[in-house]
Amino acid sequence: MKRTLIAALLLSLCGTAAADPLSAWNDTASKRAIEAWVQNATKPGSDTFIPPEKRYVVFDNDGTLWPEAPLTFQIQFALDEIKRLAPEHPEWAKDPLLSAVMKGDTKTIAAASQKGLMKILALTHSGMTTGEFNQRVAEWVTSHKDTRFGCRYDQMGYQPMRQLLDYLRENGFKTWIISGGGIDFMRVLSQKMYGIPPEQVVGSFSLSEFSLTDNGTQLRKTMQGAFNDDATSKPVAIHLFMGQRPVAAFGNSDGDLAMLQYTAANPDAKTFGLLVHHTDAAREYAYDSHPPASGKLVEGLKQAKEKGWTIVDMKQDWKTVFDPAQCPVKPIP
Amino acid sequence: MKRTLIAALLLSLCGTAAADPLSAWNDTASKRAIEAWVQNATKPGSDTFIPPEKRYVVFDNDGTLWPEAPLTFQIQFALDEIKRLAPEHPEWAKDPLLSAVMKGDTKTIAAASQKGLMKILALTHSGMTTGEFNQRVAEWVTSHKDTRFGCRYDQMGYQPMRQLLDYLRENGFKTWIISGGGIDFMRVLSQKMYGIPPEQVVGSFSLSEFSLTDNGTQLRKTMQGAFNDDATSKPVAIHLFMGQRPVAAFGNSDGDLAMLQYTAANPDAKTFGLLVHHTDAAREYAYDSHPPASGKLVEGLKQAKEKGWTIVDMKQDWKTVFDPAQCPVKPIP
Repeated sequence: MKRTLIAALLLSLCGTAAADPLSAWNDTASKRAIEAWVQNATKPGSDTFIPPEKRYVVFDNDGTLWPEAPLTFQIQFALDEIKRLAPEHPEWAKDPLLSAVMKGDTKTIAAASQKGLMKILALTHSGMTTGEFNQRVAEWVTSHKDTRFGCRYDQMGYQPMRQLLDYLRENGFKTWIISGGGIDFMRVLSQKMYGIPPEQVVGSFSLSEFSLTDNGTQLRKTMQGAFNDDATSKPVAIHLFMGQRPVAAFGNSDGDLAMLQYTAANPDAKTFGLLVHHTDAAREYAYDSHPPASGKLVEGLKQAKEKGWTIVDMKQDWKTVFDPAQCPVKPIP
Repeated sequence: MKRTLIAALLLSLCGTAAADPLSAWNDTASKRAIEAWVQNATKPGSDTFIPPEKRYVVFDNDGTLWPEAPLTFQIQFALDEIKRLAPEHPEWAKDPLLSAVMKGDTKTIAAASQKGLMKILALTHSGMTTGEFNQRVAEWVTSHKDTRFGCRYDQMGYQPMRQLLDYLRENGFKTWIISGGGIDFMRVLSQKMYGIPPEQVVGSFSLSEFSLTDNGTQLRKTMQGAFNDDATSKPVAIHLFMGQRPVAAFGNSDGDLAMLQYTAANPDAKTFGLLVHHTDAAREYAYDSHPPASGKLVEGLKQAKEKGWTIVDMKQDWKTVFDPAQCPVKPIP
């Protein structure tokens, strides 16, 4: 008995000492706010206890769990796919935008209209079966690297946020992604990168089309019934897919504002809101509301003060940006 | 040690002897087919073992988990709501269909066009907030009873199927509903009746509309973006919401055929398909392919033979239809 007791004591001591589940976070107010909220939400008898069946939390993806600059990963995928598929489509050379993509003429691409962008998305995200599309994303991610960091895209999840996902799940929270990104695109990567299964990944979507084939069935991706899961559509998607109100919401831009507001107005819980503020030009990017500002995160910063949301200052609050074992970042001098 | 061992033995013996998880099923081929598939799917080393992360199974609702005759519960709810709301809408009296609903003129209601039905659905399923709608369903279910059986609708889940849901979950399967019924309607009832949380309930849906209010936010139900989750749309919904291929599918009509076909063609598993055949006029209804046949289940019976799907003959295979403690059925002589 004594030996067992000692072993248990040692195990508990070592366990406590060894593992800070949020070790990629600096010991600043942001980390302390997260920990305090989780501890109070999960401590039986606490005033702000949240029963396990209500512990649903939602995360934006682009800019919150992985970078969105200079282009979102999905747009990069679409551009790479246009290049890969171009030899089969000589007629694309006559199209100014597609021809710009093939030449890597980023100026023309950046100036493209919404309609032009939709054309590129349609060419790379519809017409194939759902299985073929998944295969294409999987092949792309193993064969392409981010040009600035030289890392594979699936090794560029933010380490502090991945730890936060783990930490929340260890405390009984169900972690969901509610993103403007394409639902099928993200689902290929979400389990491995974030430990989030496909059904808890919600994004922009179009409907597929079912048919029988000679040896089974197929679902072909179309652009029908397109739903753009951004801004005020995020709460709509949360209701549709999750069917209940989140108790915490994590985003990075004004496109996440409605999701944070919807969460904050949950009458059944003391909720938590957090915005990732991109302030770190050396280790990642500083673009959201710094000059030259993109204006991506302006209203959110204002409302955060009123509502008590946590603003993560990347530069101050994160010890690392990416997992150094996956994607070592050399700061730009 | 000896006492512990004896206690453990007793516990294991009693446990085994006491609990048949499918006690509401007769000992017929249907029950044995279910048990054999589950045992083989969950036994490590078995040729047809399915890893836990792939154990997604889908159930239709109307006619599979609860009755759909003479009207679906949701249509009954809509008609009851028209009656409840009529005093606030004197103008409805001039509408032949709405006036028929108020008078209980079932003939006119039965002869209503799809357009008429959509009008009734729009009046009872849109215009209010999602919270108000949930409240209305919850109030309806506590204040109305099925006229033939005299039971509350939420006490009329089929006992054998509820046991099957439990049995599958105990064996590590994730149980999902994929139904033509309204997603918001079912979600009010699914946790309590079936142990299925809202996010695993998929049905026909329309989009809601987000807005800020004086003291928070609201989602208002609309008829925009209506998706009818039936027939070939079921695999589309499975892909959209679940994001992976099921390993088993349970339905009761030709409207479930595409879902069963999509499941059967899953290349990664030895799948299971089952159709509930309504053959029991005494304890429930016999309507699906008996004279006078509704033609609801014709193609399904044909394909079941080719594909090896299990046909549940309600009359032969089910010991009870409803839980006798909730809804005792007196057979019609």
